[in-house]
Amino acid sequence: MKLKNDLLIRTAMGEDVERPPVWLMRQAGRILPQYRALRGKLSGFKELVETPNLAAEVTIQPVDELEVDAAIIFSDILVIPEAMGLTYEMVEKKGPLFPKTIQNKGDITKLASGIDAATNLQYVFDAIEITVKELEGRVPLIGFAGAPWTILAYMVEGSGSKTFSKAKKFLYQQPILAHQLLQKITDTTIAYLKLKVKSGANLIQIFDSWAGILSPLQFRTFALPYIKQIASAIDNVPVTVFAKNAWYAYADLEQVDCNVVGIDWNTSPFYAKSILHTKVCQGNLDPCQLYGQPEDVAQAALKMVRDFGSNHIANLGHGVYPDTPLDNVRVFVDTIKGYRY
Amino acid sequence: MKLKNDLLIRTAMGEDVERPPVWLMRQAGRILPQYRALRGKLSGFKELVETPNLAAEVTIQPVDELEVDAAIIFSDILVIPEAMGLTYEMVEKKGPLFPKTIQNKGDITKLASGIDAATNLQYVFDAIEITVKELEGRVPLIGFAGAPWTILAYMVEGSGSKTFSKAKKFLYQQPILAHQLLQKITDTTIAYLKLKVKSGANLIQIFDSWAGILSPLQFRTFALPYIKQIASAIDNVPVTVFAKNAWYAYADLEQVDCNVVGIDWNTSPFYAKSILHTKVCQGNLDPCQLYGQPEDVAQAALKMVRDFGSNHIANLGHGVYPDTPLDNVRVFVDTIKGYRY
Repeated sequence: MKLKNDLLIRTAMGEDVERPPVWLMRQAGRILPQYRALRGKLSGFKELVETPNLAAEVTIQPVDELEVDAAIIFSDILVIPEAMGLTYEMVEKKGPLFPKTIQNKGDITKLASGIDAATNLQYVFDAIEITVKELEGRVPLIGFAGAPWTILAYMVEGSGSKTFSKAKKFLYQQPILAHQLLQKITDTTIAYLKLKVKSGANLIQIFDSWAGILSPLQFRTFALPYIKQIASAIDNVPVTVFAKNAWYAYADLEQVDCNVVGIDWNTSPFYAKSILHTKVCQGNLDPCQLYGQPEDVAQAALKMVRDFGSNHIANLGHGVYPDTPLDNVRVFVDTIKGYRY
Repeated sequence: MKLKNDLLIRTAMGEDVERPPVWLMRQAGRILPQYRALRGKLSGFKELVETPNLAAEVTIQPVDELEVDAAIIFSDILVIPEAMGLTYEMVEKKGPLFPKTIQNKGDITKLASGIDAATNLQYVFDAIEITVKELEGRVPLIGFAGAPWTILAYMVEGSGSKTFSKAKKFLYQQPILAHQLLQKITDTTIAYLKLKVKSGANLIQIFDSWAGILSPLQFRTFALPYIKQIASAIDNVPVTVFAKNAWYAYADLEQVDCNVVGIDWNTSPFYAKSILHTKVCQGNLDPCQLYGQPEDVAQAALKMVRDFGSNHIANLGHGVYPDTPLDNVRVFVDTIKGYRY
């Protein structure tokens, strides 16, 4: 399907463009009344993820409502552990919970991996195909996966955590098993993302949401090699790596075979650009800025695009918070869309 | 009281020393069996904080057990909001909870501040006096307080949080009120820390535990000016500022009138030293490293002291986790104590 608006793709490929493209992480979600209305009728979050027609519907909602420059397929990074054999529950207001966690070699041996695991996720590929068809080329569709360290963190910890100290304990106490698990996750993720691209995704984003709790050495040992494998394995579409809070790793990320690096709001555009010479930057407004007065939102959005200067995809530094005023999201998007380099 | 071991103080003052001094954040706590035994007999955490004899006892336990180079008074950063009129509860396994939070101007006006608030904390000053007497100059005693932004974060949010989005919303929506509250906290903290020094504390540490969720601009606006006020107001003893995860602010912290800057484990010693030219660095081993094999702990501790090179206070990059094997804590401490520059 030929794209009518390919600004995101051109920008990601490093082309000179007229303005930064704009989209928001978590744009398909609770900020939209039409999402909340649909979600209220369902049994839970996973029903939405696993029903291709519904996932496609909420994926397209922000394109209709906010006229952002990209759609991102509605899904969850934790479909990968589930496809490998470790099911999760999404507990309302608490987040993900794995009734069983990975503790030892036997647990890892039992896990499916690679294409065998990835093909369990047909509902995602179906959702992508439906979305691409229904989008009719209006904007590109982003596919995504968690980075292997972040996925391991949930599989070992069993839930979200402030410190993920169980998962980090696993790295320190069982480094060989950790590498075995990371490789299985990597193999599965590569197969999964290739099928996402085959189904129609126009760009792939890898989320290393918990990179920020690793030391630089641990990142280099347990995170970076697997991100590199995945980024190098994706053909034909641009790749974004967002290692949240891993400011210390930008020199490493500069070496990854990817096009775009996600930047969080702790990092100034100048710092990011001073290290990421060959990458396009994506981000990085503080999501809480969108709680401010509309004129402050506009001013902060303009400051951000000016500070990044060029080769920039406008976004927040993290997913938009569910209670963000929709009008401020609109101000953010419209300010970027009205800007010209 | 003349100190028999003043290595921490000499190091903090920038003197050339024979080896780095070593202590651990949260060393007085659940890692010690004698702490757990005492704590089990009490009604709760606050009883321990508020009973000077008991607070002194647990403050000295790690000096006896681990022979660290410093004691840190057993207390909590949240005694400050309480002294200002906002009581908190410490909910087992959940953390602090404020039944009332700060929402508007009226809430701020009602708060006590400065010396009027600080004198409500006589139990802390008593605990310091008892500790100093019982320590008999074996090691210096560290006094501490939370930085104003971190204290505001709890007073507005009402509890711990991954995002502190309510507290940050307050900064974006009510910046003038935020500054009023920050100034009241600052005035109270200065009076409080001066009384701590008067009671016998030999060094003061300021914890900005939630600095890492601010943007660089927010840190400069809402955190830094108040840290500067406090650091400049403390006379006669060295001052440490630990702004956790605020790697982006080291150039700002270099300008603060303090002696020592705390470093977390995300930050390499080389990066820290490349910016903090005039400061002593404190930190920064990953607390999870202490879950590893004893020989790995020793190796990591040695790598840390070598990487910092000099003008360094050995510590973790965060408080020691409660389930850390005590023998590994001992390996950490003993490795540093056996090292010579």
